[in-house]
Amino acid sequence: MNNFEFKNPTKIIFGKDQIIKIATEIPKDAKILLLYGGGSIKKNGIYDQVKTALNGFSVEEFGGIPANPEYEVLMQALTVIKEKKITFLLAVGGGSVIDGTKFLSSAALFEGDNPWDILDKKIATLQGMPFATVLTLPATGSEMNSGAVITRTETKQKLTMGGPGLFPVFSILDPSVVSSIPQRQIANGLADAFTHVLEQYMTYPIGALLQDRFAESILQTLKEVAPMILKDPSDYKAAANFMWSCTMALNGLIQKGVPGDWAIHMMGHELTALFGIDHARTLAILAESHYTYNFDSKKEKLAQYAERVWDITEGSLEEKAKVGIQKTTAFFHSLGIKTKLSEYTTDYEGTGAEVARRLEERGMTALGEHQSLTPSDAAKIVDMSY
Amino acid sequence: MNNFEFKNPTKIIFGKDQIIKIATEIPKDAKILLLYGGGSIKKNGIYDQVKTALNGFSVEEFGGIPANPEYEVLMQALTVIKEKKITFLLAVGGGSVIDGTKFLSSAALFEGDNPWDILDKKIATLQGMPFATVLTLPATGSEMNSGAVITRTETKQKLTMGGPGLFPVFSILDPSVVSSIPQRQIANGLADAFTHVLEQYMTYPIGALLQDRFAESILQTLKEVAPMILKDPSDYKAAANFMWSCTMALNGLIQKGVPGDWAIHMMGHELTALFGIDHARTLAILAESHYTYNFDSKKEKLAQYAERVWDITEGSLEEKAKVGIQKTTAFFHSLGIKTKLSEYTTDYEGTGAEVARRLEERGMTALGEHQSLTPSDAAKIVDMSY
Repeated sequence: MNNFEFKNPTKIIFGKDQIIKIATEIPKDAKILLLYGGGSIKKNGIYDQVKTALNGFSVEEFGGIPANPEYEVLMQALTVIKEKKITFLLAVGGGSVIDGTKFLSSAALFEGDNPWDILDKKIATLQGMPFATVLTLPATGSEMNSGAVITRTETKQKLTMGGPGLFPVFSILDPSVVSSIPQRQIANGLADAFTHVLEQYMTYPIGALLQDRFAESILQTLKEVAPMILKDPSDYKAAANFMWSCTMALNGLIQKGVPGDWAIHMMGHELTALFGIDHARTLAILAESHYTYNFDSKKEKLAQYAERVWDITEGSLEEKAKVGIQKTTAFFHSLGIKTKLSEYTTDYEGTGAEVARRLEERGMTALGEHQSLTPSDAAKIVDMSY
Repeated sequence: MNNFEFKNPTKIIFGKDQIIKIATEIPKDAKILLLYGGGSIKKNGIYDQVKTALNGFSVEEFGGIPANPEYEVLMQALTVIKEKKITFLLAVGGGSVIDGTKFLSSAALFEGDNPWDILDKKIATLQGMPFATVLTLPATGSEMNSGAVITRTETKQKLTMGGPGLFPVFSILDPSVVSSIPQRQIANGLADAFTHVLEQYMTYPIGALLQDRFAESILQTLKEVAPMILKDPSDYKAAANFMWSCTMALNGLIQKGVPGDWAIHMMGHELTALFGIDHARTLAILAESHYTYNFDSKKEKLAQYAERVWDITEGSLEEKAKVGIQKTTAFFHSLGIKTKLSEYTTDYEGTGAEVARRLEERGMTALGEHQSLTPSDAAKIVDMSY
């Protein structure tokens, strides 16, 4: 096990009918900016619940934060924050709204001239404007971590940011929201959380026995509840386990003391930037190729995963490891998610080389848990995913 | 899954050679009281490491906090805190030293006349004096939670306390310390952590699939590393997993959204108060009787535990559940821990009635996850443990 530090101060408020607790968690004198996305919260009743809870508070609103939160839109919200002297941000939405709010939390207190530097120059946020979240879409885990991914369409860039100042003060997780999420987004959430765990787990054995078992626990739970939720999104038991699994998949716990891969995400971000493919689906496109390409360095963990998550008891280590890869692809298919790039675009020729060029351009020349994957390797992995 | 709130702000600093980081985590102007137990830290080098890290700080010391931290001794430490105008407490030790420090953290800022009221009147600590820990004995999980158990020999009382103000600011967990821990205390730590998990898990199914799997992960890991550590306490890999498992067993995570039992602890505290038996061993004495007495209400979880932790695939649900109980007792025996009260004292006759009387006296008349166990039930469970 590697040395590690772990601190996660976010308060989770989990369960039915918890949105009203916003009122007791935000300081009474706060000037709040309520942030949300395309307006689905106005249809499913969450907006009304939030507004009821905020009765008596000073509240401004900023809606329209798009999926893959867009820098230009967020800069408009930043203007509102400054003009209205906002002191507290409340994100009501999924990972995109929450990530966008994290950028705003950082940018609101940023002392430089150009907030884009936070992303481009990878400036860690030690202190941000206090913010909280009401999660409406289990997937990214952003509700209990201090990282964000921001997109700039103008330059086709999708960059990460973070820092210890970017944990939500509190996050409200009401699994009832799952019943109103479209099937496509539920599938995305399942695939996203599953891959988050894989990125932190599918590396090489390092003797972190408990972290391995926690990671496997999340994978087993997602595997168990996926068919239940897809069949009936109003199954509260399944939704609660789905939601808590998504949060635990990326709140820092399972990555402590172990190596991380994250190459699938780095390549996947490029596919979203190039083609606009849903984030989760880019992960599903790349997983099989990535694990096949890096089979030798990952086969021990692939075999352990096949045994413990997919109950594969027969065969050699290599055989089990291969079944592990197949089971992963089959899991994505069971969610209705296609796993070949050519199933998303006809314009895929040359994508490997283009992804490589873009990774090279931003200096991402050493991916994976061994930092041994070059842009050239990435090109081959993407090519295998057509 | 039940509704829940979860917040754990303690910063964990885990690994080899981390004690030096005390220097960067404590405010430079703090007036520190260094608290420890019987002096083993002076033999194993930890005291020297801590003193080196604290070079340049203002430091007072208070040693001699006994196992089952004693109120009278702690009141002496409280006098030092007041006289020396201490502002930061640093516990270097195991659960007893840390629990004692939590009492002091609370008592230092307590506004009432009699600090015993914190325990006797169950006053939650909303804010305590800041404190941190250097863990020398993995077992209780006190290094990452906000609870404590304090003993008053004078009245043979052992009472619990806690509150959101009692999380350590940071805790340093260096698994290297395990190599210097006596075998008896290692065994106690393994049994204590194992039982902490059981108290939160061995109740009834409530659809908290992820919490169940996390609990099982800790049990599986403790089961796996126990023989390695007992054979070679300097096995760092085993020690690291042991240490992290003990912390995760009682940092709040696995108890969220699920019912809790804790009857074994409540009865066990009385056995320690009456006979001075090590805390962990009282749990081992009571577990089999408790699970046998409450077999019908716990058999589903007992069977699940037998299947997932002990790989029992044959038999009916009841048969698996019974094997689960047997495996638990066998696990304690594998640690060299005896599981009958008569193996610890010849003076056991009437203990059941005496435990019942004491529980009655302090109003603990409804134990267990259903709050259905009366003192009379406790008497029978204790009687079954002779």
